[in-house]
Amino acid sequence: MEALRAGRTINKIWVASTDGSRMDPTIGRIIAMARDQGIPLVEVPRTVLDKMSSTRIHQGVIAQIASHEYIEIDEMIEQTTQKDGDPFLVMLDSLKDSYNLGSVLRIADAAGVDGVIIPRHRSIGLDATVAKASSGAIEYVPVARVTNLSRTIDDLKKKGFWVFGTDASAEMTYDKANYGGPLLLIIGSEGEGVHENILSKCDVTVSVPMDGHVNSLNAAVAAGVVIFEARKQRKNAEHK
Amino acid sequence: MEALRAGRTINKIWVASTDGSRMDPTIGRIIAMARDQGIPLVEVPRTVLDKMSSTRIHQGVIAQIASHEYIEIDEMIEQTTQKDGDPFLVMLDSLKDSYNLGSVLRIADAAGVDGVIIPRHRSIGLDATVAKASSGAIEYVPVARVTNLSRTIDDLKKKGFWVFGTDASAEMTYDKANYGGPLLLIIGSEGEGVHENILSKCDVTVSVPMDGHVNSLNAAVAAGVVIFEARKQRKNAEHK
Repeated sequence: MEALRAGRTINKIWVASTDGSRMDPTIGRIIAMARDQGIPLVEVPRTVLDKMSSTRIHQGVIAQIASHEYIEIDEMIEQTTQKDGDPFLVMLDSLKDSYNLGSVLRIADAAGVDGVIIPRHRSIGLDATVAKASSGAIEYVPVARVTNLSRTIDDLKKKGFWVFGTDASAEMTYDKANYGGPLLLIIGSEGEGVHENILSKCDVTVSVPMDGHVNSLNAAVAAGVVIFEARKQRKNAEHK
Repeated sequence: MEALRAGRTINKIWVASTDGSRMDPTIGRIIAMARDQGIPLVEVPRTVLDKMSSTRIHQGVIAQIASHEYIEIDEMIEQTTQKDGDPFLVMLDSLKDSYNLGSVLRIADAAGVDGVIIPRHRSIGLDATVAKASSGAIEYVPVARVTNLSRTIDDLKKKGFWVFGTDASAEMTYDKANYGGPLLLIIGSEGEGVHENILSKCDVTVSVPMDGHVNSLNAAVAAGVVIFEARKQRKNAEHK
């Protein structure tokens, strides 16, 4: 009930079936609120809830709550543009691997990235595996989930952001670019890279050079290499 | 039989028990060769082999073969010092995670690293998970496994290698160092970093700066950031 009231993101709610007996009025209110908010509801035998709950204390209802809260993209933009210095945002075009998303959150925390933007669909979200792989960075790096990456890029461009995308076929290598000013850096997914419609919106595309036989890096490693290059340049510029 | 003849590394061999009937002469010869080479042998009921084999076609014998071959450290040093240009070797001080080792092999392939050195004990080896995470890089990057990292460092120093170690508490950040010349770069493990006795042998120690709250990166990400900085400097130097 408190989670519903606080507006936390709830993926699903399981309630014990009443088997014809009278329903607990609180459970009744929870069901009504969940229906209002469009949260999927499942009625199951009480024994199923017993097994789901590690403590067996569940009062006839269990909710699966996102392990971490997202912030609204507008709030992220406002926060980052109000702070001192040029903002630095990272957009992840559809990562599929929890371990990689957790690693990118650690990179973002370490490199002073102001926020990470992920798509609502076709992407891994902030789950328990991500939280673990992030080594706690999930608590410090604001993450916004947006329905339409293209629209967010347009919004950020209007706010004066330079949009950089990583692309294996880009002529400019990542270390030759100038990452100064308000920056949105877009990193691609494990297999596919940044989607074509997103790349076409970038002001600059950069590649990580590959000298060997296997023409890709792990997505989090590629993110680390480019983000730390951007960080270095921006830090050096601050000291000038 | 062919694997035994070719001298491939075999961890263990399972043979079907004969239950008193006459043993297939080829199996008999395999057993004799395995004993000669000191390979552990286990006799199990034929049904066990049926379950182990994905194809069920096993002719009464199954061998577990290392998914990839190591090269001898002396051979690695000889190969790298004979090639044009300064050699670049990476030493991993006791990685525990197959996924990270696979990612580092991809980095090594992409950044033109000549070989990777891992310790024989207290480290993950080249198994099937590493092979998969390496996206094929395992086929191209020579890996040597040594009993004593310190002794290998001493040997490389005698050959004129500069020894760089990563250390979170190092004053010099990774981007301020000069990575020219024959280079051995030592990367630490997931939790512990590079061990103290190894760090004390380094000519230079460098840190990856951490601006945030979580004071570590994923080991493969940290490796990527430092190895690509070294690669960049060395490439730029070649063109001068």
